[in-house]
This record gives sequence, C-alpha cells and structure tokens, in this order.
Amino acid sequence: MPPMSKKLPTRQEDYSLWYNEIVKRAGLAENSAVRGCMVIKPYGYAIWEKMQRQLDDMFKRTGHENAYFPIFIPKSLFEAEEKNAEGFAKECAVVTHYRLQTDPDRPGKLRVDPAAKLEEELIVRPTSEAIIWSTYKNWVQSYRDLPLLINQWANVVRWEMRTRLFLRTAEFLWQEGHTAHATAEEAVAETRQMLDVYAEFAEEHMALPVVKGVKTPNERFAGAEDTYCIEALMQDGKALQAGTSHFLGQNFAKAFDVQFANKEGVREYVWGTSWGVSTRLMGALVMAHSDDEGLVLPPKLAPIQVVIVPIYKSGELDALLERIKPIQMGLIARGISVKVDARDTERPGFKFAEWEMKGVPVRLAIGARDLDNGTVEVARRDTKAKMSLPLADIVASVDQLLIDIQHDMHEKAKQFRATHTTRVDSYDEFKRVLDNEAGFVLAHYDGTSETEERIKDETKATVRCLALNEPDEDGTCMVTGKPSTRRAYFARAY
Amino acid sequence: MPPMSKKLPTRQEDYSLWYNEIVKRAGLAENSAVRGCMVIKPYGYAIWEKMQRQLDDMFKRTGHENAYFPIFIPKSLFEAEEKNAEGFAKECAVVTHYRLQTDPDRPGKLRVDPAAKLEEELIVRPTSEAIIWSTYKNWVQSYRDLPLLINQWANVVRWEMRTRLFLRTAEFLWQEGHTAHATAEEAVAETRQMLDVYAEFAEEHMALPVVKGVKTPNERFAGAEDTYCIEALMQDGKALQAGTSHFLGQNFAKAFDVQFANKEGVREYVWGTSWGVSTRLMGALVMAHSDDEGLVLPPKLAPIQVVIVPIYKSGELDALLERIKPIQMGLIARGISVKVDARDTERPGFKFAEWEMKGVPVRLAIGARDLDNGTVEVARRDTKAKMSLPLADIVASVDQLLIDIQHDMHEKAKQFRATHTTRVDSYDEFKRVLDNEAGFVLAHYDGTSETEERIKDETKATVRCLALNEPDEDGTCMVTGKPSTRRAYFARAY
Repeated sequence: MPPMSKKLPTRQEDYSLWYNEIVKRAGLAENSAVRGCMVIKPYGYAIWEKMQRQLDDMFKRTGHENAYFPIFIPKSLFEAEEKNAEGFAKECAVVTHYRLQTDPDRPGKLRVDPAAKLEEELIVRPTSEAIIWSTYKNWVQSYRDLPLLINQWANVVRWEMRTRLFLRTAEFLWQEGHTAHATAEEAVAETRQMLDVYAEFAEEHMALPVVKGVKTPNERFAGAEDTYCIEALMQDGKALQAGTSHFLGQNFAKAFDVQFANKEGVREYVWGTSWGVSTRLMGALVMAHSDDEGLVLPPKLAPIQVVIVPIYKSGELDALLERIKPIQMGLIARGISVKVDARDTERPGFKFAEWEMKGVPVRLAIGARDLDNGTVEVARRDTKAKMSLPLADIVASVDQLLIDIQHDMHEKAKQFRATHTTRVDSYDEFKRVLDNEAGFVLAHYDGTSETEERIKDETKATVRCLALNEPDEDGTCMVTGKPSTRRAYFARAY
Repeated sequence: MPPMSKKLPTRQEDYSLWYNEIVKRAGLAENSAVRGCMVIKPYGYAIWEKMQRQLDDMFKRTGHENAYFPIFIPKSLFEAEEKNAEGFAKECAVVTHYRLQTDPDRPGKLRVDPAAKLEEELIVRPTSEAIIWSTYKNWVQSYRDLPLLINQWANVVRWEMRTRLFLRTAEFLWQEGHTAHATAEEAVAETRQMLDVYAEFAEEHMALPVVKGVKTPNERFAGAEDTYCIEALMQDGKALQAGTSHFLGQNFAKAFDVQFANKEGVREYVWGTSWGVSTRLMGALVMAHSDDEGLVLPPKLAPIQVVIVPIYKSGELDALLERIKPIQMGLIARGISVKVDARDTERPGFKFAEWEMKGVPVRLAIGARDLDNGTVEVARRDTKAKMSLPLADIVASVDQLLIDIQHDMHEKAKQFRATHTTRVDSYDEFKRVLDNEAGFVLAHYDGTSETEERIKDETKATVRCLALNEPDEDGTCMVTGKPSTRRAYFARAY
C-alpha cells in the first residue's frame, strides 16, 4: 500500500490519530504481535541511532563508559531496595520456567515444561539499579575505586496497560547511567550534570526546548531522594517528560551493602545516581515538530538530510543523473547525507509527498532546464518555503540552509512554548487555561501531596516540575490559600 | 584488589583457567548474580563496541538497514515453524506472569501475583525468526517490496546448562540479519555474501583466520535448508564456530504465510536468510591471540592502541607530561587512541604489567633523558619486542607499527593454523592427531549422520564444516570404508 494513499488527519481534527498515522506512514514504528511491544522500523531506527550516537558521545565526553548487565533480576535482588521494588512490582514481566516441551494433548504444539520451573523467579528488568548495585558491591572497596561512571544501552520491560507507539510501550529501548560516588555533593553534581547533558541534547540536537526542574515527591523515581527532569511541550499543549536524572542518596548502597574505605580508612556507604532517556524521545520529536503533511525532522537527527528529485522527460533520466552527480558528491563531501530518488516508476509529485511525509529537511528538485539556467529549486520542509538558488554555490547554500533549519525549528518551538506558558493566580483561571490554550501553567500551590493529588483528580494536570530557574516569589496556593514561595509548572501530560 | 596480585596460570598449565583469568583480570567480563548471565565490563564492552561499529559499517555498505523487533515471542508464533521451535524449545526462558505483589506470608517480600497470569506465555527470544517473519508478512506484498535487507542488534536468551564467559552464556548480545528475497538464487547469494562479510571481519579486523564452509545436516540451524559457517582455531587446538549464515529456503515464508506477487502477478512464497555473530567473538579474540602475560589485542579492535608510561623521578612528573603532550597530540591527530598513564601512585613496572594484561598493542616508555637524546622506548605487546625509535618521526613510526602488528598477528595465527591442520587417512591416525597436536583434521568420511555421530561419540570431534575451498578428492571413509569425494574439517570444538 503506497504511503500516500490518503491524506493525513490534521492535528486540529484528531491530534492523537495524526500522531499515530505519522509514526506509521513515515515508517517509524508499528505495533507487533506482542501486546504493547512495538517494531521499530528501519527509518525510525535510523533516527534512534543518530540520537544514540550523539548522546553516547556526550556521555563519553563527560567521562562515562558503557557496560552491559543481565536482562534478568532474581526476585531476591529485585526486592532488596523496598521502595524501588514497590514502585515497579505492578508492571513486571516474570520468567518462571526455562524450557518448553511437546504438548501431549496437542500434537505439534508446545507447552511450558512443568518440570523446568525456576527455583527463584527472574524479573525482566524494568530498570537496572538492583542488578547493577549488586554488582557494584564487588567493584567498590576503596575511595580509589570511585567514582564509578557507567552507562548501559539496553531494552527494558514495563507491563503498561495502555500503550502508544514510542510514548508508552511494554518494551522500550533506552540508556541508563548508574554512577557511584564518595560524597553526596559529588553525586548531586553528577545528577545535575547529566540533566544538563539531556537538556543540551534536547535543545541543540532535537531543537526541543525543555524546562529543567525537580519532581515533587509524588512523581519521584521509586528509590530516589530527588528526581530531576526535563519537560517539553507538545503541539497539543500537553507536556512530555523527556528525560530524568535521579539522586539516589545512599538508598541502593544500603540495600546492597556497597561501602568503601575513605582516605582515613573508615568505611562509608557510597552515594548513587541514575539517569535515563528512552525511545520515548522519538515520540517527543514527532509531536513537537511535525505538521499536517507529515514528519518534520531537525537536520541533526535526519537520516537523510537532503533528497534530490530529478525532473525529467521520458528517456532523459540517465543523462540528468550524470549532471546531478557533482551536486550529490559535493554535498556528501561536506558531510551531508543525500538521497537521490531516481525511481523511474513514480512521478515527482508522489516523491515530493513521500519525502515530506518522512520529514527530509531539504529537497532539491533538479531539471535539465534549471541546470542550463544555473539554478536549483530548493524547498525547506519546515517552512515549506521554496527558492531558486544559484547552482554555482549550491553546496554551501544547502549547508547553511541546514544550519538555519535546525536553528529556526528550535526558535519556532521556543516561540510555541512561550505562547503556551501562562502564569495564573486563581484555580478558576488555572482550569480555564488548561481547557483552552493548555500548555504549561505556572501557579502557586501549597506544596503538599494532598493538594497536588486534588488538582490532578479535578483537572488531570500534574506538577511537571519545580523549575530550576524559577525565581522565588511569595504567593498563596490557588487551592487552599496557604502560603507558597515559588510557582510550579503544571500541565496535562503524556 | 590490584589485577597483578598473582601471575596468570599459563596456557600449558591450565588453558581453561588461563582463559577465565584473562577475561576477569583484563576487565572484560564477570559472572553475575543471575545463573549463566554475564556482566560485560567497560573494557570488554569497549572492544565489543569496536566490533559492532566495524560490522555495522560492513552491513550498511552491503545495503542492510537496522531495525528492532520485540524481545518476546508469543508461544503460538514461536511454534509456527516446527523445526525451529523444536530446536530451541529446550532452552527457552518463558514469561508467564506480568505482576508481582506483596507476599502475604513474608512481610516486605514479593511474590508472583497469581491473578496476573498471561493468557499466552511469552518466550524470551532465543533467535528472532518467528517474530520477524510474522512481521514480514505485512511488509511484503509485491516483488517491489523485495529484497528486505534488515539487521538487528539485540540480546537473546538461551538457557544453557553449562556456561562460560563469552563462549556460552544464557544471555548474550549479537546481531541477527533477516532478509527476504524473490528467488532462491538471490537468497543463496545473500547467505554467501554475509558469510564473506563475516570472514573478512574475522581476518582483517580480528586477525583471525577462518575456514568458510557449510555445516552437515546434523549441525544445521533448526529451520534452515543450509547453514554456512566460519570456523576458527584456538591455541589449544580446539575449533570455535565464529559466525553462521543460513539459507532458510521458504521454510519461514510458509510457516508465516509470507507471499509476494511476482512481475506476472502470480503469488509465490519468498526466500529467506538469517545470519549472526555474537559476543562469542570476544571469546575467540581472547583465545586466539593472548599469551601467558594476558590479553593481546589486534590494533583495529583495541580501545587503547598506544599507552604512554612516563618514566620520572619524584617531583618531575608534571614537567615530563608537558614534554609528552606533543607526542600524545600527534598520535591523536593521526586517529590513534592513546592513554597516558599519569598515575603518580603506581610504579612503571606495575603499569607495564597492567597494560600488558589488557593487551594494549604498543607501549611507549618515555623519560626525560630519552627525550633529551631524541629517542623513545617502544614495546610491542604481541612479540614483546622492544626498540628505541627516533623521537623525530615517532608518530609515523607508531602508525606503521600498528599496521605491522595487525598484519603480524594475522600471519602468526595463520601459521598456527597451518601447523595444526592435518590430513589423515585412517581412523587411528585421526584419533592420534586429536589426542596430540589437535587442531583441524581433514579426513574422508561417508557423509552419513550415523558415521558422524559415531565419530563424535568415540572421539568428541565433530564435523566443523565442509570447506568451500576444499577440492574434490576421491577417498574412502576412515570409519566405514565407503567412498567419499571430499575431505571434511573435523575438530574438537567449543
């Protein structure tokens, strides 16, 4: 079935359907035969690979190394850190047997071999603190072994009941950093550093503006002392948590008895952090930038940055491709990824729509007459602007255009967030904003879990974070009238 | 515990212990709290990342794209291709439940929630043909959708009873290519192409000579029509299967009903291949090249290619490091990865031993007096040769040395294989060779499964492969005396 067979639903008509259709039609992902698990298709995976590469470079530049820990966590280890266990127990896939056998009642079919029951059940990791901290116990003896700065790229499983491609899936891909330090200060500094890395990645690579903040105790990672997060705004005015960085205090060190001898020879528990981003970022990328014609990709994450569509009369394709080659080679030499769509079976209009759907940032439509005239027709995916540019310096022009697009997409998203961030001083206004322009709503509340819960129940909005850069300001809770010293970021969220 | 605390057992004394100790002391991997699952430590993972990057580039150059499929396979899909299911049923981890709950009998402990039993059990993938072919059904309609050339980097689980770090683990990391084609010829060509890719990687990057061949039906992948393999020889004379590439015929296409309309509009089943290499290659790398001082790494896979150890008197380190900097920067500018071991807490001899254990190909020991004399002391890890080289062109010299080491390690391994490959013409000689020099034994046998089984039972040697480049030669089976037209490669194997 050709991807262009019918028009996308618009964001206005049905934002949720629009999202699902883009994910499918752009070839990013699809649902699988396994409940809640997705197949990440080649084009989607190519974007994820770019994210991985860029993040991995940032992790290594900040001194981290990659390693790999088992996918299974024995139940006794899983339950060692009680809060963490409690937080994830309700969504754990559990391996109980290690063998299948022929089903005596159904020839040719298999069943679990009842004789192959595990003595201890294995949890498929929903997150790896337990297995990693049980390992760190053997890796840390003295202050000289610290800090441990380790990251893992892995799949994890959380048995979610309501799933959506990329945004919430039973299995997802992510990276999880797990570090151990001699002091609380160092661990907090690491937590904040990785939050900054995530924010830089979101802003500079995804062109996605984010609010850096700290979660309330209600929204904290199970087992953490503090959870920092980056929060982004989607085009429907809902927020999306795009990454988290946790200060674990000594919780896991105590649960797994990870101690070190300090310089004075005294044994102390180490201090921990963990931090992660996942394929959820793919969902954020789609939702933040795309339009009613399809995906819009920032150049730094686009697997194909420039598509060249030859415009020709029957029989003239090969000659035209020869003339296009120097442009193609010039772009490649500049480090730009280029695709020449030389399919002779499709018309240019079809190709234009297909590459628009796939979000390729720049399209060059090149015909013999343009080349004779020394020009190239250039189209931007983000603004849909078309321009005729001189052939003579087309490579430099396209290179600059990619930089401009990256910048402009970021600016546009910042602009959107600015117009969808509202300060309110009453609960009525709060509700009215949520139901109309939506977005981030900055309001005073009394900081209690009870009020937070009540607001959530009544409005479906949650405290996204207490932003790090939000100034102190005396105010009163919009619900209870109690005093407050700082506004919180509220929003309805994914 | 410092890694140098006691000497390695030698290969002669205890090859198996020597291997385990190198894997541990070089910081490659260790056993985990989960039976049969390993932790791949940062240094080991860094080597694996280099393997991944180089293989991935080769896959992409041959037109393949990466994607990602679910880790779970519903039992009904798993059993669809009967031979494949039968082949893997005995070693499957099975997820039966999706939730834990507080154990009413043991406060603070968790148990499987009996109410959260899955309607259909999920198999943790031991290999992904089933889930992938069930997906391909929706991806393939016409000949225009073919070939499908897809690879996946993933973890898989096979419940092995006797495990060894890297060589045989319950969970391992690998890549698995899964392709679909319009004709048998194309699929066979793909199978052979990927075998060539693996052989090129082994020879050119791992410096590991391999025999390319085809497996006997006894050793074929469950569900394949033909299994091609590369077989390498370890220093104890045992063979190790280093990669496989399977021609699947139409077996999976039929099991999952994957058909396409050909150019004439007639529906046909597609033809499949699958091919994989795993973290087992790490074991092969260690076993093929290392010596009694530790790991020996080929430069192309070494995370650190050159280590610089400053030789100085107390108080002179900083000044010396300043003088070392230009050498370090020169090497980095040449694309060489360099580590300057500036630890002031350890003596040079300790550092030498540590980097020897970790297999760093080239060591530069640099003191102020050497620099004054315009020389640098250079040591090769592979031959342990030491030389004093002119400082003036040290960067070019080291660059050339790395090329030489890569080449010489390959030659040495080829030489070892040549002296451990024996042609025999009687069963007595066959047994004598196996019990003495070991290695590959080329012998005639009658090609039946019965004789193959008997040889295996009596000698523990298996047919490693029928080598692709082995010429036809009339002979008689060393066991039954029946006629044979070609020698097979036998060996005891990992």
